[in-house]
Amino acid sequence: MALVVQKYGGSSVADAEKIKNVARRIADTKEQGNEVVVVVSAMGDTTDELIELAYQVTKHPSDREFDVLLSTGELVSSTLLAMALKEAGYEAISLSGAQAGIVTDTTHRKARIRKVEAKRIRAELDRGSIVIVAGFQGITDEMDVTTLGRGGSDTTAVALAAALEAEVCQIYTDVEGVFTADPRVVPEGHRLEEISYEEMLELATYGAKVMHPRAVELGELYDIPILVASSFSRSPGTLIHGGVSMEVHNKVRGIAHDLNVAKITVVGVPDRPGIAATIFQPLAEANISVDTIVQNASIDAITDLTFTVTRGDLERALQVVEPICQSIGARECVVDAKLGAVSIVGTGMQNAPGYASRMFAALSERGINIQLITTSEIRITCIIAESQITDAVRALHRAFELETAG
Amino acid sequence: MALVVQKYGGSSVADAEKIKNVARRIADTKEQGNEVVVVVSAMGDTTDELIELAYQVTKHPSDREFDVLLSTGELVSSTLLAMALKEAGYEAISLSGAQAGIVTDTTHRKARIRKVEAKRIRAELDRGSIVIVAGFQGITDEMDVTTLGRGGSDTTAVALAAALEAEVCQIYTDVEGVFTADPRVVPEGHRLEEISYEEMLELATYGAKVMHPRAVELGELYDIPILVASSFSRSPGTLIHGGVSMEVHNKVRGIAHDLNVAKITVVGVPDRPGIAATIFQPLAEANISVDTIVQNASIDAITDLTFTVTRGDLERALQVVEPICQSIGARECVVDAKLGAVSIVGTGMQNAPGYASRMFAALSERGINIQLITTSEIRITCIIAESQITDAVRALHRAFELETAG
Repeated sequence: MALVVQKYGGSSVADAEKIKNVARRIADTKEQGNEVVVVVSAMGDTTDELIELAYQVTKHPSDREFDVLLSTGELVSSTLLAMALKEAGYEAISLSGAQAGIVTDTTHRKARIRKVEAKRIRAELDRGSIVIVAGFQGITDEMDVTTLGRGGSDTTAVALAAALEAEVCQIYTDVEGVFTADPRVVPEGHRLEEISYEEMLELATYGAKVMHPRAVELGELYDIPILVASSFSRSPGTLIHGGVSMEVHNKVRGIAHDLNVAKITVVGVPDRPGIAATIFQPLAEANISVDTIVQNASIDAITDLTFTVTRGDLERALQVVEPICQSIGARECVVDAKLGAVSIVGTGMQNAPGYASRMFAALSERGINIQLITTSEIRITCIIAESQITDAVRALHRAFELETAG
Repeated sequence: MALVVQKYGGSSVADAEKIKNVARRIADTKEQGNEVVVVVSAMGDTTDELIELAYQVTKHPSDREFDVLLSTGELVSSTLLAMALKEAGYEAISLSGAQAGIVTDTTHRKARIRKVEAKRIRAELDRGSIVIVAGFQGITDEMDVTTLGRGGSDTTAVALAAALEAEVCQIYTDVEGVFTADPRVVPEGHRLEEISYEEMLELATYGAKVMHPRAVELGELYDIPILVASSFSRSPGTLIHGGVSMEVHNKVRGIAHDLNVAKITVVGVPDRPGIAATIFQPLAEANISVDTIVQNASIDAITDLTFTVTRGDLERALQVVEPICQSIGARECVVDAKLGAVSIVGTGMQNAPGYASRMFAALSERGINIQLITTSEIRITCIIAESQITDAVRALHRAFELETAG
């Protein structure tokens, strides 16, 4: 008997009918002879509505209270799903994050899972029950509720799969899997049968919304195969795992893109040791995530420092950087807020030259100017004008012949 | 420094503005030098909406899941209230029923509180915090969430007041206190300054909606003074306590009325020992609460048995009683579904004759036919046609000169 962990996102359980539909899918998995643990997100827009409620009461909601508030969304969906399964004649029980033994640190609103004490889940499975776990939440050693922040329910699912040594963690969502490019941008983009953890990590980090990088990372760490598939169809989805053939025929696997990129350039920075830390440490302390960082070669000990942030963080980033800019004697801060990022990702790339030049040529042919370039071993990212992102993704999809890739 | 327990009902915290208003009242109590523990109900219609959601998913929601579902309503309101207090500059923390140490039996949907382990509350109070407790919920020894059923949040408040040895338990609601009669029925009805536990218990049991009898009973048991007052005004409310003068001038203190009464008469019952148990035990097992029971003097060992149930229980009661009726050889079951109850309540009554006759005369003058009569030491209840209830309440209010009572 295999143990399967399934996760259903908010759009999959948005109303009573959808919950019943999900219950049928879970029942099928049980009927196939599996033990089933299900992680569920809050219904539809519930989380957003709870956040709005908090901000109607106060501009600065207490983090601790905020977490208890948000955690109710998953309690509601998990109980309703358990009810639907019982109605269909199956033994089922809902467990809160606390009851499921998801123990986290005390960092409210973006807690990290410290350990999973799966005793109660194990006992309920042994009793023959389908176990429904409220996603996105955990509990501290002091018995205070925490939430896991972005990608929380995916992370709950993969963590449970690891703790329970599940055969597979299935992430059901509103898309049919991982595509060579966002199918809304590239209609001829197609679903990948499988992808490696590293490739998925790069795609997710650089804009593919299908799964949060954090959960992919955890999957890689514990070597849990993760299937991403649609909760509305029976499409086979995409399997993220460690056993993908290293010598895949076409070495670019997918194109990721990200809008809402903003660029800040600190012009005329005196180039002395420690100057980068002077700028980036305060940004880290303000909890602003800095992405690409580029420093030009310095001329006469004066250099320019360029970095990107998400557009939502731009204003706060400037509030941090501008005073520093003055205090270190830099000339000025220049901002470009309307940028995007386009990335090609593929494990094979690292040992095969020519991918970068092919990418740059494809963009250049479309008259797209590249503002910044960064690379990892399996990814090349170009920062370009946001208005040219769609054109760039399509051009790269063609240039790397992804419409014919397997 | 006194310890005060306050409870705010659902209509008092129905939206963000009302929550802020309640926060101001709590802050005032704190500023007066008190330690404050607050019990809060779910916002407005939240509980009804959650119930509806459950019934959209299944006709027979699992009791255990139902309780977790409903308990989220009070988690939401308690966190929002804690946020509002923090926004106003006060230390405040919300606690779930479990965190507050409300330990119950395992009877889901109408659990009874077994004990209160108030250690965490005490620790938070010692830290200077205002403690907001989610009402209506508790936890079993197995760490499963339960709800307390009708009057749950009032019961939470009084139980906490008892465990913490509070000076007073203040129940804030949408009415200004306990009235001589429902002011919507009798405009000249007025607020009572004080009332004894016994009188309040009778009024609440026989239709006064202001407080649930269960919480009054608990208050009496632990001798906790209970103030019932409005959360929207600064009216002084009504104090329910044990120290009310026994020799009050006007011995009828209030008129309670109840609609939705249904009467079942089992006609032609063979009058032999154990016959009442044959009928009423199956009703109790079906969880149907039987109110007034009257058995006529038997003629030739044949009698009639009459009892009342709430109209909502009528159909289920008949399903239980009709087969019994046949099996014991009774002639028939006769139903009158459109009845109401009107009661006069007052501690002084028990030693002063003439109250019953004054009541019957007042009803008779208005042409109101009495179908059943029951009494306790401090109450007389008449079952009459529902359509005549308003008229009866007004007539009795005048007959006992309650418009001039203190």
